Amino acid sequence: MPLITRYMTTDGPRFGIVEDGMIYSLSTDPFLTPTLQGEDLMGPAEDLLLAPPVTPTKIICIGRNYVGHAQEHSVPVPENPMLFFKPPSALTGYDTPIVLPPDVGRVDLEAELAVVIGKQARKISRDNALDYVFGYTCANDVSARALQKADGQWGRAKGFDTFCPLGPWINTDIENPNNLNIRARLNNDTVIDSNTSYMVFDVPYLIEFISRVMTLEVGDVILTGTPEGVSQINDGDKVEIEIEGIGTLRNWVEIEPAN
Amino acid sequence: MPLITRYMTTDGPRFGIVEDGMIYSLSTDPFLTPTLQGEDLMGPAEDLLLAPPVTPTKIICIGRNYVGHAQEHSVPVPENPMLFFKPPSALTGYDTPIVLPPDVGRVDLEAELAVVIGKQARKISRDNALDYVFGYTCANDVSARALQKADGQWGRAKGFDTFCPLGPWINTDIENPNNLNIRARLNNDTVIDSNTSYMVFDVPYLIEFISRVMTLEVGDVILTGTPEGVSQINDGDKVEIEIEGIGTLRNWVEIEPAN
Repeated sequence: MPLITRYMTTDGPRFGIVEDGMIYSLSTDPFLTPTLQGEDLMGPAEDLLLAPPVTPTKIICIGRNYVGHAQEHSVPVPENPMLFFKPPSALTGYDTPIVLPPDVGRVDLEAELAVVIGKQARKISRDNALDYVFGYTCANDVSARALQKADGQWGRAKGFDTFCPLGPWINTDIENPNNLNIRARLNNDTVIDSNTSYMVFDVPYLIEFISRVMTLEVGDVILTGTPEGVSQINDGDKVEIEIEGIGTLRNWVEIEPAN
Repeated sequence: MPLITRYMTTDGPRFGIVEDGMIYSLSTDPFLTPTLQGEDLMGPAEDLLLAPPVTPTKIICIGRNYVGHAQEHSVPVPENPMLFFKPPSALTGYDTPIVLPPDVGRVDLEAELAVVIGKQARKISRDNALDYVFGYTCANDVSARALQKADGQWGRAKGFDTFCPLGPWINTDIENPNNLNIRARLNNDTVIDSNTSYMVFDVPYLIEFISRVMTLEVGDVILTGTPEGVSQINDGDKVEIEIEGIGTLRNWVEIEPAN
C-alpha cells in the first residue's frame, strides 16, 4: 500500500514514501516511476512538516455531489456534475493552519475524497477511467458560506489562501474509490459520517465527464464533493477529515489579524 | 515598448521579443530579467506559430465588470468583483482554433484586457498595485452560454480546452491600463467597441481585491471582464480581439467532431 507524501526540507518540499508511520526519501518523481522504493529514513511522519502531496495545474471541484448535502442547503441535486475551481494558491498541508480572513462571516469545513490524476487524460471513458488515477487523498473544501451566496460564483468564497488542505498522503493502491467511509471531526466530535458510495456521480463518471471538457494533466486534483454535516469552524478549532484506507488530514483554525 | 511573446520550436515554446513585426529570441526568462535584449532573429511574427505568452498557475476572471455587459444579460452589476477561474488547460495562442464541442448550444466570444502579474502579490494596496504588473495582453473569455445558465457555476461553460485564447504578446510598457480602446471583430464586423475606462472595478482595485483573497504568483493572469457586444461564434468564423497599445488576438472557430 504505497503512501506518497511530500515533506518539507530547507530546500523545499521533497517526495517521500510512508511505511509504518515512517517517511523514507524518494529520489525519483513518483508520478513517473512505476515501482517505488523508499531510500533514506527521514523520520516519523508525525515529526516532519508535510506539504500538500502534489502540485496540481488545476483543482477541479464538484458541487452538490451528495444528496444529503444538497438537501441541507435546500438546493436541488444538479443534472450534470457542477464544476468549479479552487486555485493552487489555496493549498495547504497536514497540520497547518486554516486562516480565516476577518469580516467574512461563517466559514465551513467540507470533507472530500480527492482524486489525483496520474496520466494525461482527454475524453476518457468511465470504463477505463481509473487507469488514469495515480491515487487518492483527503481534502477539505473550506468555504466562506456568506460570500458564496453573496457572490454567486464561488471563486472568492472557496479561493482564500489555506482554504484547500490536502493530505496527509496519497494512497496509490485503492482499487475501488466508491465505497470508502468518509468522516469529519470538529474538536473530536464527528460532524460528517458518510460513505463515498453516496456520491451522485461516482469517480469514473466524473473523470469521463471532466475529461470531455478539459484535458486533465498529471498531478491534477478532483475534489469529489462533500457529504452532509458541513459545520462552521472557528478560531482554535481542530478539524480532521478521515477517509478509509487513506488516513486523517488534520488542520487548525486561526483568525487572520485585521489590517 | 517591449512586446514579449512565446513562439513554438521543435523543443517547445520559447520566449521572444517582438520589434517591428519581427521576433528575436530571448535566452533569459523575461519575468526575471529587468532589461530585455533580443538576440537571434527568428523571423516575422506572422510566419511563426505563437504560444500563449505566459503559463500561469491560475487564471482569475472577473464577471460583469462593465455595466453594458451586465445590462445585455439583464443582471445587476455586482457589489464586489465576482471571481471565477478558467483552467490553464483552456489556454491557446494566436491564430489557433477555438474548438466548439458538439451539443453545447450557443458559444460566445468575450473581449478582455488580460493583466499578467510580474511579482508575487499578497495584500497589495491599489496605490502601488501596478508595480506588481508585468504587462498586458488580449484575451477571449469564450463562453458556452447555455451551459453557463444550466450549471450555475461557470467552470464547465468557460473551461473547455481552447476557450481561453491569449496573446499575441504582452506589452510591458503600458502605464495606464484604464483608458485603452478594446474591440472585438467577428468576420471583420466590429461587435464590441468600448474602452477599459468603463470597467466597474479598475485594474488597481482588482489587484488589491484579489490579492487580499489569494496570493498572486508570477505569471498569473487576471481577465478583467468583457464590455457589451458579446456575440455567438460558429464554425469557420474569424474572431479578433484588439486592444489599443497591444495588438490583435486572432483565432478561428472549428466544430469538434462528435464521437
